[in-house]
Amino acid sequence: MATVSTKQDPSVFGARLGRARRAAAQAGSDALLITPGSDLRYLIGVGGESHERLTCLVLPAEPEAEPALVVPKLEEPGLAGVPLAELGVHVVTWVDGQDPHALVTELLARGGARPARIAVADGMPALHAIPLRDALPGAEQVLAGPILRELRMRKDTAEIESLRAAGAAIDRVHARMAEFLAVGRTEAQVGADITEAILAEGHVEAAFVIVGSGPNGASPHHDVSDRVIERGDVVVVDIGGPMADGYNSDCTRTYVLGEPAPEVRDTYAVLQQAQRDAVQAVRPGVTAESVDAAARGPIGHAGFGAQFVHRTGHGIGLDVHEEPYVVGGNPAVLEPGMVFSVEPGIYQEGAWGARIEDIVVVTDTGVETLNNRPHELAVLPV
Amino acid sequence: MATVSTKQDPSVFGARLGRARRAAAQAGSDALLITPGSDLRYLIGVGGESHERLTCLVLPAEPEAEPALVVPKLEEPGLAGVPLAELGVHVVTWVDGQDPHALVTELLARGGARPARIAVADGMPALHAIPLRDALPGAEQVLAGPILRELRMRKDTAEIESLRAAGAAIDRVHARMAEFLAVGRTEAQVGADITEAILAEGHVEAAFVIVGSGPNGASPHHDVSDRVIERGDVVVVDIGGPMADGYNSDCTRTYVLGEPAPEVRDTYAVLQQAQRDAVQAVRPGVTAESVDAAARGPIGHAGFGAQFVHRTGHGIGLDVHEEPYVVGGNPAVLEPGMVFSVEPGIYQEGAWGARIEDIVVVTDTGVETLNNRPHELAVLPV
Repeated sequence: MATVSTKQDPSVFGARLGRARRAAAQAGSDALLITPGSDLRYLIGVGGESHERLTCLVLPAEPEAEPALVVPKLEEPGLAGVPLAELGVHVVTWVDGQDPHALVTELLARGGARPARIAVADGMPALHAIPLRDALPGAEQVLAGPILRELRMRKDTAEIESLRAAGAAIDRVHARMAEFLAVGRTEAQVGADITEAILAEGHVEAAFVIVGSGPNGASPHHDVSDRVIERGDVVVVDIGGPMADGYNSDCTRTYVLGEPAPEVRDTYAVLQQAQRDAVQAVRPGVTAESVDAAARGPIGHAGFGAQFVHRTGHGIGLDVHEEPYVVGGNPAVLEPGMVFSVEPGIYQEGAWGARIEDIVVVTDTGVETLNNRPHELAVLPV
Repeated sequence: MATVSTKQDPSVFGARLGRARRAAAQAGSDALLITPGSDLRYLIGVGGESHERLTCLVLPAEPEAEPALVVPKLEEPGLAGVPLAELGVHVVTWVDGQDPHALVTELLARGGARPARIAVADGMPALHAIPLRDALPGAEQVLAGPILRELRMRKDTAEIESLRAAGAAIDRVHARMAEFLAVGRTEAQVGADITEAILAEGHVEAAFVIVGSGPNGASPHHDVSDRVIERGDVVVVDIGGPMADGYNSDCTRTYVLGEPAPEVRDTYAVLQQAQRDAVQAVRPGVTAESVDAAARGPIGHAGFGAQFVHRTGHGIGLDVHEEPYVVGGNPAVLEPGMVFSVEPGIYQEGAWGARIEDIVVVTDTGVETLNNRPHELAVLPV
């Protein structure tokens, strides 16, 4: 339980707790059970430590019932500085040998009524979810994700400011790519330098560093390998991670070592058009799937539809991947404050790949991009 | 899906898959469902990536049924080099828009019989466990942990060799502590240097770096802070993380900046006796709780029982914390090949704390310690 969000006022968390309880009640859940992770950080400003000892926020939907944070006694000092009393959250500690799952049941039973439906954090490990189910035999267990995503996907001004800072930080890393990417170096060597730069730019972790050179660029989730970068290689660089306040960066640019082949230039131009079209499609009132379709249009038209093997984007905030997902079949209507990636790619298996990714915010009237490096294929000297 | 265990022969994983299936059958489970994490790494040599897209090993207990690895299409290239065909594991890919939980149900239904009980990985997030429960409405969902721990807590020779190497690596970091720990530096500065040394010594991650100086040492799970280390401070340094092959180190030593106060020396002598007694109690045939009791004896006798606020130890391997837990109430009988920490501590709230931690292996005749730095209170010059 180390890092407390510093940019947010405690009243922000009080308001979030209230909204979460009302949303749980509306969804027909009697309580939210939130174990460590981004949901916990969103609600009380501290993410906690996830391990075999149970830490769990017990948040009753009933407004009169008192929320409680169940926490191992030896984790309690980590809560110093978290304004739990101010938030009306009672701390309940337990020690090795006690049954923490039974403790949660007791807390839920305090109101008198037996809970009929309990929503658990999406990230709660089965290690806790199954004992909690067994300790509450009458209650149906459902996911808290659908309840909390409605809150979390609408970012407030401070959250957008955090994501803007994260975007600027990762842009500064991409701005230095010519220092790192060179013929004769391995992807792993380049990745190590990028990792250092990501940390130097204020991130607390380089959560992902993809350096996909030549044929490795055709695997969207490649990370790094011992492949030596060659003259003429196209290289996909997809990097990011959390800043100190928990909000994430995520940005992809595609580089080429020396002059690209004409086929690469032509294919990349299609990708660039697709990414631009998709960003320009973003505004309040349109659906997530319509943004996906906007990216697919030019790519499909050029005959590369089968080489664009993933969704167009994902929401981002305290998690790198969260709602809203920009994918066919998602009719969610975009609203101001939603933040997500727009990242089409074209992958030529066995040969090369390319992807362009920006984080964008839905504004009152349109779109703001949080990554602002040039979108052209970046030709590095060899 | 990056790192494949390199020290192990594929036949090792074949044998583990077979043992896991037999253990599942004995436990009355029809199949194991294993999502990314250390259980997956133990069974097939690769831990996978845990996120919102489902990756899941479907391992039927029935020996004639074919195991399958359900994996997002875009993660498939990461499986290159994993000998799945050799292990008889069929790869089933899915793409965005498909329902991967329904896919698991179909695979389980192939044998004809409807499964009655399914064991899921302890680390499986509710995000997957609850949809899998809903996709298999007739089946009881139980934890796979009790099944797999019986395998995982009995380490083979190669695993012990891995843990021995991890122990030697973290010992080399402790050997350099006089370079890092000094009056006038903050815990965070010391921690940053330790992190670098942990990585330099072959770890892939500094998973935990606790530098608990003065009163912070009294919080067993403190990490680092901006507290400036002062002359006379007692400092608990508890550090470790995974090596490239996935096996973890974890070792604690207690340092003091300049000559310790007599009360510190006396209390520390009690702790050292307790840790020695507990290590000497380790041999095949004794219980985990008897080792815990051996540590508690001298500490309780000296009147510090209430200041030893946690269990004596935890198993270690591909997870930092795993079975067997060395704790009161655990009657598990120790067997050769079990590996765990012995780490009593004494915590004087608001003042200082001390802990000594070694990883030990139960051998055929007694015990081998994998950490071998001196146990005395390490007095650093000021």
